[in-house]
Amino acid sequence: MEKDTDFSEWYNDIVEKANLSDKRYPIKGMNVWTPYGWKIMRNVDTYIRKELDATGHDEVCFPLLIPETEFKKEKDHIKGFDSEVYWVTHAGLNELDVRLVVRPTSETAMYPMFSLWVRSHTDLPLKIYQIVNTFRYETKQTRSFIRVREIHFFESHTCHISEEDAQKQVEEDFEILGNIMKQLCIPYSLLVRTEWDKFPGAHYTVGIDTGMPNGRMLQIGSIHHYRTNFSIPYNITYEDSDGEHKHVHQTTYGMSERLLGAMIGVHGDDKGLILPPPVAPFQVVVIPIIAKGNAEAVKLEAEMIKLKLEGCGIRVKLDDRDERPGSKFFDWEIRGVPLRLELGMRDIENKVVTFARRDTGEKGTIALDDLTSGVAMLLEIIRASMYRKAWEKQSSNVATIDSLNDLPEKTLRFGWCGSEECGHKFEDENDLKLLGTPYIPEEFTGKCIICGKKTDKVAYASRSM
Amino acid sequence: MEKDTDFSEWYNDIVEKANLSDKRYPIKGMNVWTPYGWKIMRNVDTYIRKELDATGHDEVCFPLLIPETEFKKEKDHIKGFDSEVYWVTHAGLNELDVRLVVRPTSETAMYPMFSLWVRSHTDLPLKIYQIVNTFRYETKQTRSFIRVREIHFFESHTCHISEEDAQKQVEEDFEILGNIMKQLCIPYSLLVRTEWDKFPGAHYTVGIDTGMPNGRMLQIGSIHHYRTNFSIPYNITYEDSDGEHKHVHQTTYGMSERLLGAMIGVHGDDKGLILPPPVAPFQVVVIPIIAKGNAEAVKLEAEMIKLKLEGCGIRVKLDDRDERPGSKFFDWEIRGVPLRLELGMRDIENKVVTFARRDTGEKGTIALDDLTSGVAMLLEIIRASMYRKAWEKQSSNVATIDSLNDLPEKTLRFGWCGSEECGHKFEDENDLKLLGTPYIPEEFTGKCIICGKKTDKVAYASRSM
Repeated sequence: MEKDTDFSEWYNDIVEKANLSDKRYPIKGMNVWTPYGWKIMRNVDTYIRKELDATGHDEVCFPLLIPETEFKKEKDHIKGFDSEVYWVTHAGLNELDVRLVVRPTSETAMYPMFSLWVRSHTDLPLKIYQIVNTFRYETKQTRSFIRVREIHFFESHTCHISEEDAQKQVEEDFEILGNIMKQLCIPYSLLVRTEWDKFPGAHYTVGIDTGMPNGRMLQIGSIHHYRTNFSIPYNITYEDSDGEHKHVHQTTYGMSERLLGAMIGVHGDDKGLILPPPVAPFQVVVIPIIAKGNAEAVKLEAEMIKLKLEGCGIRVKLDDRDERPGSKFFDWEIRGVPLRLELGMRDIENKVVTFARRDTGEKGTIALDDLTSGVAMLLEIIRASMYRKAWEKQSSNVATIDSLNDLPEKTLRFGWCGSEECGHKFEDENDLKLLGTPYIPEEFTGKCIICGKKTDKVAYASRSM
Repeated sequence: MEKDTDFSEWYNDIVEKANLSDKRYPIKGMNVWTPYGWKIMRNVDTYIRKELDATGHDEVCFPLLIPETEFKKEKDHIKGFDSEVYWVTHAGLNELDVRLVVRPTSETAMYPMFSLWVRSHTDLPLKIYQIVNTFRYETKQTRSFIRVREIHFFESHTCHISEEDAQKQVEEDFEILGNIMKQLCIPYSLLVRTEWDKFPGAHYTVGIDTGMPNGRMLQIGSIHHYRTNFSIPYNITYEDSDGEHKHVHQTTYGMSERLLGAMIGVHGDDKGLILPPPVAPFQVVVIPIIAKGNAEAVKLEAEMIKLKLEGCGIRVKLDDRDERPGSKFFDWEIRGVPLRLELGMRDIENKVVTFARRDTGEKGTIALDDLTSGVAMLLEIIRASMYRKAWEKQSSNVATIDSLNDLPEKTLRFGWCGSEECGHKFEDENDLKLLGTPYIPEEFTGKCIICGKKTDKVAYASRSM
C-alpha cells in the first residue's frame, strides 16, 4: 500500500482492508455500508446535526420519490438532471400514470410543500435540513464514497424575506462548515463556480473543495444562493408586513459521504487509515502486553483503564484477543485508531501506560493517575495537529502558474480574464476542470493565461478525481 | 376531538394539530416528516439502537435498490411481494437491462452479501440491523404512520449454525422488544401467525400486535424464523468444525413507524397527544406566569430552572412567548409534553415550582431545592404509570367469546381447532382477521368456534385497522 506511488490503488485497498464498505453488491456503484464505515459516517452526521441544530435548523425527512410533474417545474434544473436520474415507472402490476423520480437532491420534493408552509413574513426564515440517501445514475467509473450511485447526503434548505438575508445565510453556512471541518480535520477552498458549472437553477454556487494527495481537488460539498429562481416556479410567497406578496429568497447547502472519502485520502498513510479522534468509532485501543504469570493482573488493569476512559465519554476498544501484540498493532493501524495504549507488567509497576500516536508514531507514557485527562488531552492534540498538517499539505499542493507548458501534478492557480470564451478554451485544450474563483477575493496582478489580457482575477483548476 | 366517539377522525386530527406529519405531499401515502414527528421517531430509533447494540448487533446500511434477478430467487417471497413493489425501469435516458426493485424489506438485498460474508462457523452468529426507508405500493386507504407507502423501518437479520441457535435469537428478540416497549409504554401480544398469513418465505412468523382504542389490533412489528428457507436459494453456507458445509439458519425482526402510530392511539386523549417521557422531544415545558412588575425575576428563575434540568440531561422547552398562560397550556397539551412546570412570583417566594402531569392532570409542587431529582422522579412515575394503564386497557379490550353472534367491538379470543378450513371460514364469514395463536401457550378448554370440535387451542382475531 504505497500512497505516493499510486494514490488511486492505495485508496481502494484501504477501503477494503479497513472494511469500510463492500462494493461487491450486485449493482455497480451501490455499495454496502459495513459496520465500521457506517459508524464513522454516523459520527460525521452527529457533528453536522449539532451545528445545524445550534443555528436554528429543524431536521425533517421528505419522501424519496418525486412526481415527474413537480420535478420538471424549474427548466434549468431538470435540464441539469435529465440524464442522471432513476425513474420509477411501475408499481405492483400497474404502470404509473405519473412517473416518479428517485431524488437526486430534494429541491423539487420540498418546494411544493414550502409553498404551503410559508404564508407570512413571520414564517421566515424557514431553515430545515435532512440526512438521507440520494441517487445519481453515474456513468463514469465509480469509487467508494467518492463517486457512487446511492449517496449518503446532508442537505439544508432555507427561505428568507430578501436577497440580503439569504446572503447572510450563506455566510452562516461557511461558519457551520468551518466548525465541522475542524472536527474532521479536512482543509477546504471556497470557490465560486463558473456560470456553466453552477448548480442547475442557482444564482451562484460556491464549491467546497479539498486537495487530494494526487494534486487533484475533490468537491465535498456546495452552497447555493438561488435568489427567487425556484420560488417563482414553485410559487413560494409570503405576505410582507405592508401586505404585499413577495417571493422568498432561497439557499441550500449540501455535503455527502465524500467527507469520508476526503478523510481517507487526506489523512491516511502506507499503514492504513488515520481517523480524526472526533469521528473515530474507537478513539483508543488498549492492548494488554502479557507475559508468563501476569495475565490476570494485566488484563484486570486493562479492563479498569477501559472503564475509566468510557466513564469520561471516550470510545475505547480493549483488544484482549489471544494474539501477538504486533499483529494487534497492525490491525488497529489499518483501521486508523488515533491512540494506542499498551499495558504490560512493567507499566503497572511504574504506574503508567505506554501510548503510541497513530498520526505521528510518537510514543510516550501517561501516569495512571492522570489517565483520563492525559488521554483526553492527547486526543485533542492529535486532532489539532492533524488539522494543521492537512492545511499545510493543501497549501503546498497549489501551484501558481503563468504558462500552460509543463503543468505540475497540482492544483493550478492562474490569472483569468473571466470570459466564458477563455474559460471553455482553457478546459477543452488542457483536459482540466476550471474550479472557479475564490469566494474571498485574493490579491493578484497578472495576465489571463489564455488571452493574455491584464487581469486582477485569479482562478483555480485541477484534473477531475 | 373526541377519541371515544370517532377514533379514526380523532387520530387524523391529532396528527395534524400536533404537526407530526404533513400528508399534503403530492404522492398519496408518502408523507413529510415534520420536525416534531421526526424528533419523536428519532428518539424511538435511539432506543432501538441501544438495545440492538447491547445484544451484539452491528448497524449497517444496504442499498435501496435490488436487482430483479436477486429479488426472485426465493419463490414464496416474490409471490408475496409481487403486487406491492415499486420498480425502477429507467435511468437517465436509458432503459435498464435488469429492472430494480425499491426495497419492501431487505432479505433479497442482504442475502447475496451474506453468502460472501459467511465462510466458517467462526463467522457465526452474524447479527446485523439497519434503520432505513422501505416501500409498499399500498392500494388500501392510507393513514399517517399506520398505512403508508414509504415506511421508516428497522430490520435486524441474523445467521446461526443451527435451528436451535436461531430459536434462541427469537427469544432474545422478545427481550429486546420488552425493553423497547417499556420506554414507549406500548403493551403487546405475541401471536404466531397462521400458515397463510406468515411472512413470505418464513418457517414461522410471530406478529407483535397492540390493541387500539377502537378494539382493533394493530401489528407494529414481527419476528420471523426462516430456518434454511432463504439460505438455500441464496447459498449462505458455513464450514463446520468438522469440515462439513452447512446452510445457516436465519431470523429477522422488524418494526416500523407504526410504533409512533401506536403511541398516538394508545396514549392520546381528547386534549391531544400524550407522549411517553423517554421519547418526548421536550419532556418538560416551563411556563413563566408573569404579573405586573415581576417579569424580570420570574423569567430569570424560569431560565435557571431550564438550565438546571438540561444539565441533568432532561429535554426542556422554556415557553416565554408573549401570550396568555392558558393558550400556552393548550398548545403543549396538544403536543403531549409529559410534564408542565408553572412558575409565578408566589412559587418563587415559596421556593417551589408548580407541576401538572399531562397523563393524569394531577397538579402539585416541587421544592426548588429538589428540582432535578423531583422532575426526574416524576418523569419515571409518569412512564411507569402510562405503561401500566396501557396494559390494563389492552387486557380489558379482549373478549373471550364462544359464539359468533353479536360480536363486541373488541379483540376476540376463542377456541380454534387449528385447521386451515375452519380458519378461512372464520375469516371469510365474519370479515375478521385471524391474528393467530399465542406464542406463549394459554390454558384453554373449549370448542372450535367454527366446527365445534373440542380443542385446547385458543386464537385471537380482530377487524383490520
